[in-house]
Amino acid sequence: MASFLTGLIGSGIGPSLSPPLHEREAAHHRLHYVYRLLDTDRLGLDVGELVRTARRFGYDGLNITHPCKQSVIPHLDELSPDARMLGAVNTVVFDGERAIGHNTDWTGFAESFARGLPDAPTRRIVQLGAGGAGAAVAHALLTLGADRITVVDADPARASALAAELTGRFGPERARHATPAELPELLAEADGLAHATPTGMAHHPGLPLPAGLLHPGLWVADIVYRPLETELLKQARALGCRTLDGGGMVVFQAAHAFRLFTDREPDAERMLAHLTDLIAV
Amino acid sequence: MASFLTGLIGSGIGPSLSPPLHEREAAHHRLHYVYRLLDTDRLGLDVGELVRTARRFGYDGLNITHPCKQSVIPHLDELSPDARMLGAVNTVVFDGERAIGHNTDWTGFAESFARGLPDAPTRRIVQLGAGGAGAAVAHALLTLGADRITVVDADPARASALAAELTGRFGPERARHATPAELPELLAEADGLAHATPTGMAHHPGLPLPAGLLHPGLWVADIVYRPLETELLKQARALGCRTLDGGGMVVFQAAHAFRLFTDREPDAERMLAHLTDLIAV
Repeated sequence: MASFLTGLIGSGIGPSLSPPLHEREAAHHRLHYVYRLLDTDRLGLDVGELVRTARRFGYDGLNITHPCKQSVIPHLDELSPDARMLGAVNTVVFDGERAIGHNTDWTGFAESFARGLPDAPTRRIVQLGAGGAGAAVAHALLTLGADRITVVDADPARASALAAELTGRFGPERARHATPAELPELLAEADGLAHATPTGMAHHPGLPLPAGLLHPGLWVADIVYRPLETELLKQARALGCRTLDGGGMVVFQAAHAFRLFTDREPDAERMLAHLTDLIAV
Repeated sequence: MASFLTGLIGSGIGPSLSPPLHEREAAHHRLHYVYRLLDTDRLGLDVGELVRTARRFGYDGLNITHPCKQSVIPHLDELSPDARMLGAVNTVVFDGERAIGHNTDWTGFAESFARGLPDAPTRRIVQLGAGGAGAAVAHALLTLGADRITVVDADPARASALAAELTGRFGPERARHATPAELPELLAEADGLAHATPTGMAHHPGLPLPAGLLHPGLWVADIVYRPLETELLKQARALGCRTLDGGGMVVFQAAHAFRLFTDREPDAERMLAHLTDLIAV
């Protein structure tokens, strides 16, 4: 029987839920499977050295998170087309002699959105947050067919850079950037709000925008998953908005990585239930 | 649920059966468990570097085999009393900040002998082979209460050195050394023959002593396990001798290491059946 040794490279990853998510799903497939945390701070090695050594010490694949999703790229032999396009890798598979980079962040959000908000209108979407997660979310929404995303970030240069990347990839009409001051006007006309900043996490409580800007005509998708019910989603639900929590993106990025590592089809519903258990503890 | 990452450090270990033996037993305990081979030749690192790096990369414990059982010792923080006495480590457990060396080779042989040849007389034992395995076997037999072991090796200095170690540990009457020329006389008076050389393995076929020296009054214990039925055991059985094959030592050393790694009680009978399957393939 095959056995799989996998792990996560990143900084401050101690609280990651990936080890139990992966290992429990693997147990259902009766696989020998171990998922370890390789914290860059604790190990004091750069990402290239971590990837090379992990491979020599028996790892079959790795997930990669902040702050290594870009810096890992020069240390890989090959990139999937998506990872190359996004310029970010969250999954590395050691395939024989080659280390191949993939990106399951965007496919994770895309699957979560398609399942959780089926038939949601996507003519005009406002997205808060233009960091790495925001890049994956916007890429997913445009790939799924959204007509136009307006990216808003506290850092206007970052919003502008992401919008430029997106228009380069999807066409000039598909993405714009705006400032927080323009939110009232933008949201009044929008079908949905995608939230991709840390606000609402346990350590960043609160709302990422004034509550008064929400209205029942919006769907609201959050990528924060700790807690699953953020203040944003709570207020949106109280207004009657359709909502999507951040659990789906976490689970589907993990499920897609699991599939790349093992060639087995994970049961995403089971993984979602497991995530809910893990977060509740 | 706990997960365990373990492995084997040594040279030329590609054919080792430890990965399936450990992983399958772990599956019965519903543990997440992966066992990897860390070949010193392939990795090009010394044993100290291998142990330190394995630990930093998430390993919980290691087995150690030829040629590293002695050379690993300076790289450990602590030795079990047995490992210190034998000067050889085949199992390392990473316990918090400490790397602790153990020896389950001798306990493995001891349990195999006690189960496989219960009540066998051990007044006079002849042992062929004074290498690392021989040291573990003789230590086990004397610990189990054998009155006297006579160690015979093609290299007289090695036989003499092992006998000196054993008398230092167990008392002046308990161990002697002799030359192959003395075997006829020694075996005529012996209760049992312990075989601890490579002769009889697939790549070292044949008998380790003239067949005519065997007689029905001897029990014969072999440590070779590939094949389980060596030429020595075949001839001994044909004469009606009680015999013990090398499978037990392999399984019990693995079972004892598994217990040290996981704190779970392995099912040795199940592991023996598995070993037989693995060797038959």
